Amino acid sequence: MVSAVERYLEDHQDAHLAAFLDYLRIPSISALPAYRDEIERAATWTARALTEAGVPEVEVLPTDGWPIVVGRWWVADDLPTVLIYGHYDVQPVDPLDLWTSPPFEPGIRDGRVYGRGSADMKGNYLAVIQAIEAFARTAGRPPINVSFIVEGEEEIGSPSLPAFLRSHRDRLGCDFVLSADGGMLGPDTPSLTVGLKGLASLQVDLTTGETDLHSGQFGAAVPNAPRALAQLISSFHDDSGRVAIAGFYDRVRELSEDDRAEIEAAPFDEERFRSQAMAHALVGESGYSTQERRWARPTLDINGLWGGFEGEGTKTVTPCRAHAKITCRLVLDQEPGDILRLIERHVADHLPPGAQATVTRFPGSARPFSLNRSHPGLQAARTTLRSFYGQEPLLVRSGGTVPATALFQEELGADTVTLAFMLPDCRAHAPDEWFRVSDFRLAARVYSAFFTTLAQELRR
Amino acid sequence: MVSAVERYLEDHQDAHLAAFLDYLRIPSISALPAYRDEIERAATWTARALTEAGVPEVEVLPTDGWPIVVGRWWVADDLPTVLIYGHYDVQPVDPLDLWTSPPFEPGIRDGRVYGRGSADMKGNYLAVIQAIEAFARTAGRPPINVSFIVEGEEEIGSPSLPAFLRSHRDRLGCDFVLSADGGMLGPDTPSLTVGLKGLASLQVDLTTGETDLHSGQFGAAVPNAPRALAQLISSFHDDSGRVAIAGFYDRVRELSEDDRAEIEAAPFDEERFRSQAMAHALVGESGYSTQERRWARPTLDINGLWGGFEGEGTKTVTPCRAHAKITCRLVLDQEPGDILRLIERHVADHLPPGAQATVTRFPGSARPFSLNRSHPGLQAARTTLRSFYGQEPLLVRSGGTVPATALFQEELGADTVTLAFMLPDCRAHAPDEWFRVSDFRLAARVYSAFFTTLAQELRR
Repeated sequence: MVSAVERYLEDHQDAHLAAFLDYLRIPSISALPAYRDEIERAATWTARALTEAGVPEVEVLPTDGWPIVVGRWWVADDLPTVLIYGHYDVQPVDPLDLWTSPPFEPGIRDGRVYGRGSADMKGNYLAVIQAIEAFARTAGRPPINVSFIVEGEEEIGSPSLPAFLRSHRDRLGCDFVLSADGGMLGPDTPSLTVGLKGLASLQVDLTTGETDLHSGQFGAAVPNAPRALAQLISSFHDDSGRVAIAGFYDRVRELSEDDRAEIEAAPFDEERFRSQAMAHALVGESGYSTQERRWARPTLDINGLWGGFEGEGTKTVTPCRAHAKITCRLVLDQEPGDILRLIERHVADHLPPGAQATVTRFPGSARPFSLNRSHPGLQAARTTLRSFYGQEPLLVRSGGTVPATALFQEELGADTVTLAFMLPDCRAHAPDEWFRVSDFRLAARVYSAFFTTLAQELRR
Repeated sequence: MVSAVERYLEDHQDAHLAAFLDYLRIPSISALPAYRDEIERAATWTARALTEAGVPEVEVLPTDGWPIVVGRWWVADDLPTVLIYGHYDVQPVDPLDLWTSPPFEPGIRDGRVYGRGSADMKGNYLAVIQAIEAFARTAGRPPINVSFIVEGEEEIGSPSLPAFLRSHRDRLGCDFVLSADGGMLGPDTPSLTVGLKGLASLQVDLTTGETDLHSGQFGAAVPNAPRALAQLISSFHDDSGRVAIAGFYDRVRELSEDDRAEIEAAPFDEERFRSQAMAHALVGESGYSTQERRWARPTLDINGLWGGFEGEGTKTVTPCRAHAKITCRLVLDQEPGDILRLIERHVADHLPPGAQATVTRFPGSARPFSLNRSHPGLQAARTTLRSFYGQEPLLVRSGGTVPATALFQEELGADTVTLAFMLPDCRAHAPDEWFRVSDFRLAARVYSAFFTTLAQELRR
């Protein structure tokens, strides 16, 4: 039997898809200060969408960084309260030349919406809003109490979120958080994310002198900054692919038998994964499977490096400066602050002769997150997904980071249930990011069914 | 007794300096195709300067690359003929933020002309032209037969010069070549360059896949291109600072006792050199002194490297592409083609797992050059310098490369005597390049005296 909410969503598919494309046209790149106006447009757009969906209390609140959109629809004291988390910001788009169509001119090809932010995560959050809208238009109210928090700094590590949560603890109180930021293991493989990695970010700025020099007059006798940087970067890992920073693994929880079994339960095709990644090969820390590496082992990644001449042709210069951007993905019980200190010490200890370096920490460190497997919100999500997919959802982890999850635990004492629809090959953070039109529609139906299930199972 | 030529140069100092500044205003950056018009302006400017100086036969000749300016003033069959070589092109100017004043808005501060190309080498060549002008205006002709060749591709390795020399062999016939591209050991230390290094240039383009990836979803399980590039670059040298490319040193002539004595004879202050280089330290191949490294040992230099995210802040990306620009400085008897082949093989043999790479050779390889110490042109230059500086000029080498020198030997059978006035701290190829006003004036006087000496000593 099709519910009124389902029928409403069915009848408004075109308008809802149009709104999605509209949302994607806003280049809300949080990493680039030049996009300030676009970030603010995206916040305002999100707030208006909530208001038009029927949410009575909606505000765009300033922070030290980009604004946070909050909303609240209190229905009854005996109903469970869910705080629905997401972000309206997106990743930068370079290298632009690898995009088939412009990142902020969304288009639909082969049942997919292409555009920066389509999968990560404007489609998911808009589906939540449209689910609420369906309740508002058909029943006059949602089946549970809902609050909303949509930030604009997830892609830069949520630096303003901790202070924001601390100062708005009261209005954000909830039984648990629903995060719409994440995905499914596959189009026919429902899954729920119960573990996320933490994050620590830094930049190394290395110098070998104060000026670039003629490589003929000086190159044989002075240090070369790009070469020194390459040597330093090479010291970060050993030959087996392990991170060679002293102390890096000291607090890492080794995988238990249960952990290995849970990871093993998720179907995984190495060659299919490699092919989706469009990578020449799969490589990583020795002693662990690809899935264990992705889901449960910490990493140190070089996100970018540069130094010296990048123009066309040749330039016989000995450069004096070189730079690297680095992020670490962390697992329980690594602490971002500890890891950053260890890297700083490693850099100081491993500088090649004649090189000096400064390490700059980027804001937005995040602790790793793990959800108790018996959490009632998780159980309700399992029930809901089972009814849509006709099979038990897998419990999975993600190598990704949602800093908010650890912060909700720390600041609100609330666990986070992640329910979202991005697919592994959606090319989040990469050129040609996409989201399936069918998943966008399914998401709104699943969220509405989830709210109904929560109303039944968590009523006090 | 002051000669008529000397008096002419004295009387025209202001106009000659103004012409120098005018020449420097042309941003003739040969490495950047976008500067095509400026390159052609510089060629035309050079040709006009020759014509206005009195040179009867002047032409701007096209090549497959940038044009070459040639000129000829034939005086008498029994006079020696000197082909005067130089280049009107300049190096790129980045990093632009390290320039005190804009590179193509030359200014005079503390007796120095600042601007890209001031030392390397518009000042030197213009001084030659002004010396010829002084003879033309005072004696109606120069004391020897002179031809001129001014190319626009020296800073990119003179790729068009070999074919040009081959097809214009007749008009370029000469007793020897005078190169005005080089310098003196110090303001009070006259020197003549009798050895130059060769050059081989290439770019390594490394990939680990076909798309950049989310470092959380993929980073732990796929190769990282910047990291792979750093590992590859680190393999190019061993811990003692020697190039670790197999076979790199096979054809290198070890330094003889005479070589070491000649190098040792040139005064050299390590700390002063380091300070002029603004380098944190001096480092290089073990087993050799700083001067031996600079003048007589081959190198592999990283001129630039880049890959992944270079913007502000952080981006959690696993980049799939990284690049390095590399030049080698070569010594007798290394062959550029051999060295490039060895590097290609090394790259293929040292790629980290999951990485692929292509090596692109840049045109403009150059063989190393050495001048016979008893060459009559060299002797005449020694006599001339002795009379101006009151001391015997030192015979020195340069770590730099003038590809033309080897080409003149190969194509014209002509040796090259280098007589020029750049100083070691003139910051050639670097920000804030400068040339002393007094050296610009001295240069014209020395070149005119050199021509007179040649007329006396080399007359048939």
